[in-house]
Amino acid sequence: MSGKLFAIGTGPGSSDLITVRGARVLAGLDILYAPAAKKGGDSLALSIVREYLSADVMIKSRHFPMSADAGAKESAWDAIADEMAADVCSGAQVGFITLGDVMLFSTWVFLLARLQGRIPLEIIPGVTSFSCIAARTAFPLAMEQQSMAVMSCTADESLLTEALQRHECVVLMKVYGRFEQVRALLGRLNLLPHALLMSSASLPDEQCVRRLADWDAEQPLSYFSTILVNKRWLAETAVLPELCACLE
Amino acid sequence: MSGKLFAIGTGPGSSDLITVRGARVLAGLDILYAPAAKKGGDSLALSIVREYLSADVMIKSRHFPMSADAGAKESAWDAIADEMAADVCSGAQVGFITLGDVMLFSTWVFLLARLQGRIPLEIIPGVTSFSCIAARTAFPLAMEQQSMAVMSCTADESLLTEALQRHECVVLMKVYGRFEQVRALLGRLNLLPHALLMSSASLPDEQCVRRLADWDAEQPLSYFSTILVNKRWLAETAVLPELCACLE
Repeated sequence: MSGKLFAIGTGPGSSDLITVRGARVLAGLDILYAPAAKKGGDSLALSIVREYLSADVMIKSRHFPMSADAGAKESAWDAIADEMAADVCSGAQVGFITLGDVMLFSTWVFLLARLQGRIPLEIIPGVTSFSCIAARTAFPLAMEQQSMAVMSCTADESLLTEALQRHECVVLMKVYGRFEQVRALLGRLNLLPHALLMSSASLPDEQCVRRLADWDAEQPLSYFSTILVNKRWLAETAVLPELCACLE
Repeated sequence: MSGKLFAIGTGPGSSDLITVRGARVLAGLDILYAPAAKKGGDSLALSIVREYLSADVMIKSRHFPMSADAGAKESAWDAIADEMAADVCSGAQVGFITLGDVMLFSTWVFLLARLQGRIPLEIIPGVTSFSCIAARTAFPLAMEQQSMAVMSCTADESLLTEALQRHECVVLMKVYGRFEQVRALLGRLNLLPHALLMSSASLPDEQCVRRLADWDAEQPLSYFSTILVNKRWLAETAVLPELCACLE
């Protein structure tokens, strides 16, 4: 069998929200690269997929620096891409996992840019955090002629403002560290009743805030927090589906 | 066991791009509602999930009118929602399937609006068509501080223009019937080299157009066609991953 690299989106968090294809490919891997946010740190993505791995898979946790130092990041990506390419060319079935979908706000794209054309590879998409949050909270994304913007809260506030003004539905990712500014912006635009925040969607520590106006910003917020805004729906009145009894 | 309704996103087309949870839930259903675009017509969603169903599941194909007649649509949704609620309250495990993700541009939300609070229900997210297209073509969506807009080509051209001007990445859904207008718009904005079209992503009749400028618009276009735009990448130079040999 010739070597190949598989980039696999793990989905939002719960192990059974990975695709059937992703689970099958994981079971056949010789080597799995897992991103670790801190040096020597745990990988949430690895904990999601562990149940699907074969007993003799080699796991290579690799640190992807988050620093602003572009040179440090590029060197790290270069080194990991070279190591992956060498593994594939030795004939191994090699995997790389990322949270959510693999082509949206993902480190994978930096590796792809270095590996495309060099080795055989296959990309397996995953469920995004915002699809999961919409499902868990019964709070819809865009419909019919409506539109949706997916924004990083690290973007300029003017861009966030424009997106919130122009689109019926807005997904605000990377809220962590910017919660107060984003809440103030939603308040100025009268959008707080139309917004909800979810952390760690589908995981045991999942948390949902449907009244953002009342949330105590001093409380710790998970790194994996996202705000959904939908101007046509009210965050508070959407009933949590699992709490409903059969009424007829 | 008490009755429950499960709304399940099937993913973009290939059966193994559904989630593991979706596949497991499908296997335990008593009744499956499948949308049929035409009266008596086939359901692509049903063909995707058929391999996961138990032998004795009852399949209820239901027609969702696409017409502009709001009254006809509302009556159809009311009737189907009432039928689902009655099935759940009789104790059945009931499923409803939609292509892609279940909360984005999906008929499900019209049923949800009628059923929320009436019956126990669970929503299982799915992989979107645009995540699948990005993966199949190795053409990325947004990264880092960038943003992505997801638009329906049935929206006003002024809204499409604004989205294409303001976001690094734009997903243009529902291209069918509007291809020429959308291509002309991309041409005026000098975005044709940064756009690709994919039809029936992950299905046997999958088709990818990386040179939109040269595409003969007289050729038939699949109903399931989407255009991805990414201003930072060129559609033509992205190498199809499966064609690469090991070069090192």
